[in-house]
Amino acid sequence: MSTPISQRRLANAIRVLSFDAVQQANSGHPGAPMGMADIAEVVWRKFLKHNPADPNWHNRDRFVLSNGHGSMLIYSLLHLTGYDVSIEDLKNFRQLHSKTPGHPEYGYTAGIETTTGPLGQGIANAVGFAIAEKTLSAQFNREGHNIIDHHTYAFLGDGCLMEGISHEVCSLAGTLGLGKLIFYYDDNGISIDGEVEGWFTDDTKQRFESYGWQVQSIDGHDSEAIVQATQNAIAETAKPSLIICKTIIGAGSPNKQGTESSHGAPLGTDEIALTRKVLEWEYEPFEIPQDIYEAWDGKVKGDVLQKNWQADFDAYQKAHPELAKELLRRLNGELPSDFEQKAQAYIEQCQAEGADVASRKASQNAINTLQPLLPELMGGSADLAGSNLTLFKDAKGIQNDASGNYIFYGVREFGMTAIANGIALHGGFIPYVATFLMFMEYARNAVRMGALMKQRVIHVYTHDSIGLGEDGPTHQPVEQLTSLRTTPNLHTWRPCDTVESATAWVEAIKSAHTPSALIFSRQGLPHQARDNEQVANIAKGGYVLAKEQGELQAIIIATGSEVGLAMQAYETLSGQGVGVRVVSMPCCEVFMAQDSDYRESVLPSAVRARVAVEASHVDYWYKFVGLDGKVIGMTTYGESAPAKDLFKHFGITSDAVVEAVKELV
Amino acid sequence: MSTPISQRRLANAIRVLSFDAVQQANSGHPGAPMGMADIAEVVWRKFLKHNPADPNWHNRDRFVLSNGHGSMLIYSLLHLTGYDVSIEDLKNFRQLHSKTPGHPEYGYTAGIETTTGPLGQGIANAVGFAIAEKTLSAQFNREGHNIIDHHTYAFLGDGCLMEGISHEVCSLAGTLGLGKLIFYYDDNGISIDGEVEGWFTDDTKQRFESYGWQVQSIDGHDSEAIVQATQNAIAETAKPSLIICKTIIGAGSPNKQGTESSHGAPLGTDEIALTRKVLEWEYEPFEIPQDIYEAWDGKVKGDVLQKNWQADFDAYQKAHPELAKELLRRLNGELPSDFEQKAQAYIEQCQAEGADVASRKASQNAINTLQPLLPELMGGSADLAGSNLTLFKDAKGIQNDASGNYIFYGVREFGMTAIANGIALHGGFIPYVATFLMFMEYARNAVRMGALMKQRVIHVYTHDSIGLGEDGPTHQPVEQLTSLRTTPNLHTWRPCDTVESATAWVEAIKSAHTPSALIFSRQGLPHQARDNEQVANIAKGGYVLAKEQGELQAIIIATGSEVGLAMQAYETLSGQGVGVRVVSMPCCEVFMAQDSDYRESVLPSAVRARVAVEASHVDYWYKFVGLDGKVIGMTTYGESAPAKDLFKHFGITSDAVVEAVKELV
Repeated sequence: MSTPISQRRLANAIRVLSFDAVQQANSGHPGAPMGMADIAEVVWRKFLKHNPADPNWHNRDRFVLSNGHGSMLIYSLLHLTGYDVSIEDLKNFRQLHSKTPGHPEYGYTAGIETTTGPLGQGIANAVGFAIAEKTLSAQFNREGHNIIDHHTYAFLGDGCLMEGISHEVCSLAGTLGLGKLIFYYDDNGISIDGEVEGWFTDDTKQRFESYGWQVQSIDGHDSEAIVQATQNAIAETAKPSLIICKTIIGAGSPNKQGTESSHGAPLGTDEIALTRKVLEWEYEPFEIPQDIYEAWDGKVKGDVLQKNWQADFDAYQKAHPELAKELLRRLNGELPSDFEQKAQAYIEQCQAEGADVASRKASQNAINTLQPLLPELMGGSADLAGSNLTLFKDAKGIQNDASGNYIFYGVREFGMTAIANGIALHGGFIPYVATFLMFMEYARNAVRMGALMKQRVIHVYTHDSIGLGEDGPTHQPVEQLTSLRTTPNLHTWRPCDTVESATAWVEAIKSAHTPSALIFSRQGLPHQARDNEQVANIAKGGYVLAKEQGELQAIIIATGSEVGLAMQAYETLSGQGVGVRVVSMPCCEVFMAQDSDYRESVLPSAVRARVAVEASHVDYWYKFVGLDGKVIGMTTYGESAPAKDLFKHFGITSDAVVEAVKELV
Repeated sequence: MSTPISQRRLANAIRVLSFDAVQQANSGHPGAPMGMADIAEVVWRKFLKHNPADPNWHNRDRFVLSNGHGSMLIYSLLHLTGYDVSIEDLKNFRQLHSKTPGHPEYGYTAGIETTTGPLGQGIANAVGFAIAEKTLSAQFNREGHNIIDHHTYAFLGDGCLMEGISHEVCSLAGTLGLGKLIFYYDDNGISIDGEVEGWFTDDTKQRFESYGWQVQSIDGHDSEAIVQATQNAIAETAKPSLIICKTIIGAGSPNKQGTESSHGAPLGTDEIALTRKVLEWEYEPFEIPQDIYEAWDGKVKGDVLQKNWQADFDAYQKAHPELAKELLRRLNGELPSDFEQKAQAYIEQCQAEGADVASRKASQNAINTLQPLLPELMGGSADLAGSNLTLFKDAKGIQNDASGNYIFYGVREFGMTAIANGIALHGGFIPYVATFLMFMEYARNAVRMGALMKQRVIHVYTHDSIGLGEDGPTHQPVEQLTSLRTTPNLHTWRPCDTVESATAWVEAIKSAHTPSALIFSRQGLPHQARDNEQVANIAKGGYVLAKEQGELQAIIIATGSEVGLAMQAYETLSGQGVGVRVVSMPCCEVFMAQDSDYRESVLPSAVRARVAVEASHVDYWYKFVGLDGKVIGMTTYGESAPAKDLFKHFGITSDAVVEAVKELV
């Protein structure tokens, strides 16, 4: 029998792969992987419940590398434990079309649970994973059947803890008592600018205790201590756990360890040679001896774990067939078979009823109708439930009932949104989150991350313009719609009435790989008449709401609260013999994705007398009206006053639309 | 002698004015003013060093209402103490063009130090005020002359403390030991969604102690306790202080106090009548008896305070005339008289030298040249000094030297930016802050707030596109430039070489009431040839960099790193006899502000064969190329790879520009 390989030597495999790949790419971050290698060895070999052969096994533990710049740490782990990440893939670190991009990218690499890099958001995603696990298990587990039962582990660094989002989500995680959430803080005392003591002197233990966490402090290079602390964290089931691991950044590099010089640049060939000596590592770059591979391999253990779970699931399925079917449906992200038909009926009902209400109220009506069809909806708002109108009839807060379907996120827009990304990534839920459109900005980068990761998160943004009135310019969006519309893989809907609002909700739910931002008014909006074809065309993003009388001379394009103004202008102009049509454009991105015939039928190229009207920044609309058209909208900040005074003050009126059209025809 | 008026009765004047004004506007937030009235009475009558007759007195204490929705609290205080806020102004609460908008707006109302409403940012501004005071006093005070010596007080609520930015800035304030910063936390246990215990259970005392603050817990309706706690806070000069004040939201309203129903809506006339009884307040709405006015009046005391300070300043001026002159210049926001000439010489020198460097390096060169002329520059970066290249030769971190000129902000983009707004508002400094362009998003709403408040903050954003290469899509901006360009009152510069970079810096510094975002590349950029007129025209935002050979047939518009591509295309096309010009457009907003003759001279309306090229989202550019032009840029997320591979992969090449022009002419 051969001598067992030391844990340090197994950890050194991570160190060597990491600095060699960074050197090969001539770009990357060796410091964090080298500093956290000993922690990773313990967590991944002793604790993490996963199966490299099936990275999508529903009940796997989730692992998040929140300090995503240390991507070679996780690529090394995936390679060593047997995921579909080869040595060739590691050699292609940071190259085009590789499985090993500079930061871990969800969907690029088997075993990457979430895209990280923007600091702090990984830990928010991890909180989302833990919420999803807790809620799903409460909804689906039954006596004797712990079908959903896994931990969420995350690694994080000083940067994550300095970011404000860490406060938002760790505070909430404490309040929610997420006992299966375990964080390892890479406390190496170094950030990019150097030793953190000049700008980061928190007592982090005390800070996390103030949030109601279990906190332990250990030597992050002491494998036994890491084992013990992890066992303690698992044993604490009522609180999330933070393990503060004192580490040395770049550990092993004789001249660079413990300094920022090992953080974000290759060690260099000379230093690598010295480091190999220190680590007593006698192999060539990208050469890992067989005994180390064998000690790391996670496939056999993973196969057993998953098979055991499958047997448990089979028993569950036998005992609770309907529940099991529903769980699988939800985990696979499939909508109920009758969803589309019922949703369509609801849209038609809205058209028939013709209610004049604020679109935020129309949104709440839609939620109340769709939620009973979709128990996977997980609602929430950043402390604006009564303003965003996000509560529904059977809403149950998860803080009072673990099997609930609504999250009172508190005033935490960024945390909320990044948590929702985590919930969506986990599976089993379609999360929607809400705040005022202005405070989308607080959450902005998480909105983008959800779109980059192709996650079905629905963002409800109410109070969408100067139409919110008295709260004034700090609350009145101007440039925010443009920001959303130019975000790749995001659909931004700004509906004009109950029918468009219902359609927006249904399209958002059906859009499995694209998040949606649903933009709603505070103020009441009039219902618009439509025939069946028009109702169906809403889903195409833009359509002719009012056809020209006589020859087509001009086009008015409008969205949301300005569709009503456009229709008034249409009446006036048509009465004066001007052949004008009104195009309602609730979702520009979806409209632009239609075929050119359809787009041409709505916006004929030859017609250049075009006026766009929207109580938002004008610049976006030149894409549709060109150099010869006009845009009626905002170019400055708003003001505090009743809404009707503001529309007049800023010249966003039907009279202005009439005048603009007349100047063009 | 009449009986002294009780402090409670003075506080009740705030309560009554607040609920009456909200009722009159039929909109607003009575709960916070009523809950914090007793604290406000003590702070404003006993401690705040201010002069209602001169709201701009340089050495006044700063007061920030971070929970800005409680605006009637500060409007009541300003009215009662004698600022230029009349009873008529209070009656016009939340009406168009009033001095009393829904949230406190800087510049609208005498005595409002900063615009608040977006939660958490007020406390960040307050940290900025305290940093400015500490640094300015260290730079200018001399033995026996404490010319700059004031406190910063802030009120804040649960919402502020839930927001992540509170973590960022309070952590930094603790590290910096801002001993003259005093916060009053309105601990009323209520947020909009109800009792906070469902979503906010932090031990806030413990949390702030972990940041190194002095923390006291008191009854926020006990005037004596408020006095004592404030005295303790003032006595603690090495740490910032948090006073946790247990309060009752809407205190005085018999049926609504202590509940969320008093937070954000009028109390209603019936409840107001009952509240008047409880408060034993016998006066009509907007009627304040003379004795209460007299007890509140701050003008006499303010006049004495300011006169005493003026005498001190006169003595200082006599002892240190040059220093006094320089201090006044800086406090008045005036540039040195030789600045413009020296800056212009530097720009010309850059043109003459013709260096090919990354624009982030060009930016650092500009800082190194301009900083010795401008000691008011207060640099900083969110832990990316070595990547943003924001350090300069004589940079001194304020954490080591209180008279320093550089802030190591740590990984705190949002906090950094809102702190910079506070530093600018305080006066005496021109702050610049830096991060990667992508992480502008973390700071996004503070960028907007600085623009709304017309503050000269300079945002340095490097790593501006796929040109950053291997870090991949999480770090590669696509839609961020559009977001900045559509922000009202913000100038976004994306220079193409050292000359444009120097001009951008100079224009940003000269732009006293408009913040600027300076966008720089990671990668090297080629120098462009220019004659003197062209060099001068850079400051106009857009100009003809390469004139057409022969008749003008087409226009290429480019910015930053794509100007080089445009110039290559120009050479090819000109060689083939195509009459094409290249317009460099480093700042679209400044270009659009030029007169129409100039704009027409650069972009003749008749020429519709226009191609814009920028490694950023395409949508923005239709404003310049219209329906008949073409835009070469991004519509998807980036990828992780070396920069040269990415420009090819995404088709942003000079060949693509050539082809696009040929298709149009």
